[in-house]
Amino acid sequence: MLEAVRGQSPLVQNITNYVAMTISANVLLAAGASPAMVHAEEEVADFVAIASALVVNIGTLSPSWVSGMEIAAKAAAQAGKPWVLDPVGCGATPYRTEVARRLAALKPTLIRGNASEIMALAGAAGAAPKGVDSSAGSHEAIESARGLAKETGGVVAVTGETDFVVSATRTAAIEGGDVLMTASTGIGCALSALSGAFLAASPDAFDATVGVMAVYASAGSIAARGAGGPGDIPARLCNALYRLDREELRANAAIREL
Amino acid sequence: MLEAVRGQSPLVQNITNYVAMTISANVLLAAGASPAMVHAEEEVADFVAIASALVVNIGTLSPSWVSGMEIAAKAAAQAGKPWVLDPVGCGATPYRTEVARRLAALKPTLIRGNASEIMALAGAAGAAPKGVDSSAGSHEAIESARGLAKETGGVVAVTGETDFVVSATRTAAIEGGDVLMTASTGIGCALSALSGAFLAASPDAFDATVGVMAVYASAGSIAARGAGGPGDIPARLCNALYRLDREELRANAAIREL
Amino acid sequence: MLEAVRGQSPLVQNITNYVAMTISANVLLAAGASPAMVHAEEEVADFVAIASALVVNIGTLSPSWVSGMEIAAKAAAQAGKPWVLDPVGCGATPYRTEVARRLAALKPTLIRGNASEIMALAGAAGAAPKGVDSSAGSHEAIESARGLAKETGGVVAVTGETDFVVSATRTAAIEGGDVLMTASTGIGCALSALSGAFLAASPDAFDATVGVMAVYASAGSIAARGAGGPGDIPARLCNALYRLDREELRANAAIREL
Repeated sequence: MLEAVRGQSPLVQNITNYVAMTISANVLLAAGASPAMVHAEEEVADFVAIASALVVNIGTLSPSWVSGMEIAAKAAAQAGKPWVLDPVGCGATPYRTEVARRLAALKPTLIRGNASEIMALAGAAGAAPKGVDSSAGSHEAIESARGLAKETGGVVAVTGETDFVVSATRTAAIEGGDVLMTASTGIGCALSALSGAFLAASPDAFDATVGVMAVYASAGSIAARGAGGPGDIPARLCNALYRLDREELRANAAIREL
Repeated sequence: MLEAVRGQSPLVQNITNYVAMTISANVLLAAGASPAMVHAEEEVADFVAIASALVVNIGTLSPSWVSGMEIAAKAAAQAGKPWVLDPVGCGATPYRTEVARRLAALKPTLIRGNASEIMALAGAAGAAPKGVDSSAGSHEAIESARGLAKETGGVVAVTGETDFVVSATRTAAIEGGDVLMTASTGIGCALSALSGAFLAASPDAFDATVGVMAVYASAGSIAARGAGGPGDIPARLCNALYRLDREELRANAAIREL
Repeated sequence: MLEAVRGQSPLVQNITNYVAMTISANVLLAAGASPAMVHAEEEVADFVAIASALVVNIGTLSPSWVSGMEIAAKAAAQAGKPWVLDPVGCGATPYRTEVARRLAALKPTLIRGNASEIMALAGAAGAAPKGVDSSAGSHEAIESARGLAKETGGVVAVTGETDFVVSATRTAAIEGGDVLMTASTGIGCALSALSGAFLAASPDAFDATVGVMAVYASAGSIAARGAGGPGDIPARLCNALYRLDREELRANAAIREL
């Protein structure tokens, strides 16, 4: 599936947070996709028309950005183009939760978040995150993910030590990656961005999501090996994505359908 | 004190400039803290309620952001939570100086800036900076820092070749770091961000500030050794913060109370 | 010419996109210049008054930013200070094309873009870009560049595998760099930023532009050699710019006046 991304080089439009923009663009470029960051209400819909996928990330939201997100999400849905929602910090403040729910109601092809975010988005009890970090393990959010998948008709990915990909009827678990990835900012956001490229290059959203999780876990494991610390993760992750071949992919991530 | 940050992993809310967001988040993560970038008027006060400290940096200010800064600073003050002001470029334009002074009037626990910024904020003569860079040595700003410390009842740190930490009654000088740190963007801003974590994890603001300055100087010295140039500083600084132990800290920075 | 930048350390004001801010600042710092990111309508003109050059990049534009860009560009023109326009994604959406044309009408000293952007800005047929990436080779945009140069009275640079620098009467081609540079985000934007420093430090805009293209191609070639992938480019490019000497410059880039 990484080969399809490299071959098609899909144009992925991102409306994402300030912190993760650079690493998101770099991860997409390293995997062979073509990123663009376009958020203004004046042009988001025009850009969706030429993009292959849209990624919406509420990490550093404000009203005019949210308005751009909604216009873009509606345009993507109408055009039948895949779009990803990353509900960063959902549950941390009422504003954030409300915006995330409004966007989720626009039926994203994929929602990707940590356990706290997915649980808060689904309205599960006891989900209060620690700011933008999760206070729960990814397995605790599987039921919430299933509920969201049924509501949206899409796929939900809960990332953590083990990543879970959930649709209305299917569940997969992906193992791999490294704890160092959590000590470098925007690595999860960049995975949401990369998911857009995989959704654009693959006919099935569940398979595309499992594929991107496995590729990322694999590249993350490779990046962490030999790293001097978390500071080396962004560069090494991009290098790994750029070079990754089938054999390395297989050796560094494990997929189980549950 | 770094152990306290690692142990408590304080949630540090940042309203900071676009250039330094990524390195600020990465420095906080590397030191074991939990960063979040939250600036919208719609949610800043709600986020302060769950954060352990607030950092306000005016590097790329505009009116709606300034409004978020003021709401957040007032909320932090009211809740008795420590907050840091980084008056980037104070003195460079009237708008910037005016905003910095308005924020300083809200009595930050710590003000951290270069000599030109601190002198301009204190209204000292002859302080015109070169854009966001200082045109004076840090020792030249000690009297201005003292004046500000008396006004705010807080601590003021003037960073430069030697860093000075000043309260109404105490003064400390910290030596360490490396000139390469000045050739990489946002390193000073990230120090302000990290200061938020130390203030959250320590009962005394003066000691916390001296502590964070020593840790950063130390990590910076380690980062610069063996670096191929300024491009390597961000990653190596994060690696050093992640791994730093007491012995390295002691060997790479010197604290003198004056 | 790099020596002049290092010697004078010009203050370069940037109104640029969120993705490229950090690498733009780092490239300027590595080359010895003093960057500042200042975009608010409330202070842009005051900052132009103290800056040596202005760089305007529309990568992540929105109305209030565009307003700041126009005020700053007019202030630079009135003060006789060099300013650079980087029309990122011109041609991708009507809004972007319209804004780029309005800014070009303010007669930038230098316009730097990829082939698609320059052709779209000049109104050439068949120029539709792929998002913010070019769909044409740089040589295809030479006539468009000439037309723009005549309109603005300035210089136009079309970057790509070969870079072309064009004025009303002169043309130069610069060879060097490496394809890895295109797999790391903001490298082109950072070149526009660095161009501001060279224009500030040199009396002739054409020569300054040829100079900065050669320095960047050279540093890029050095950065790519020994890189583990695109992830290493930002840091290695800054290291190369920081250390570059005449001999390396000559060995790693070729200039031909056509």
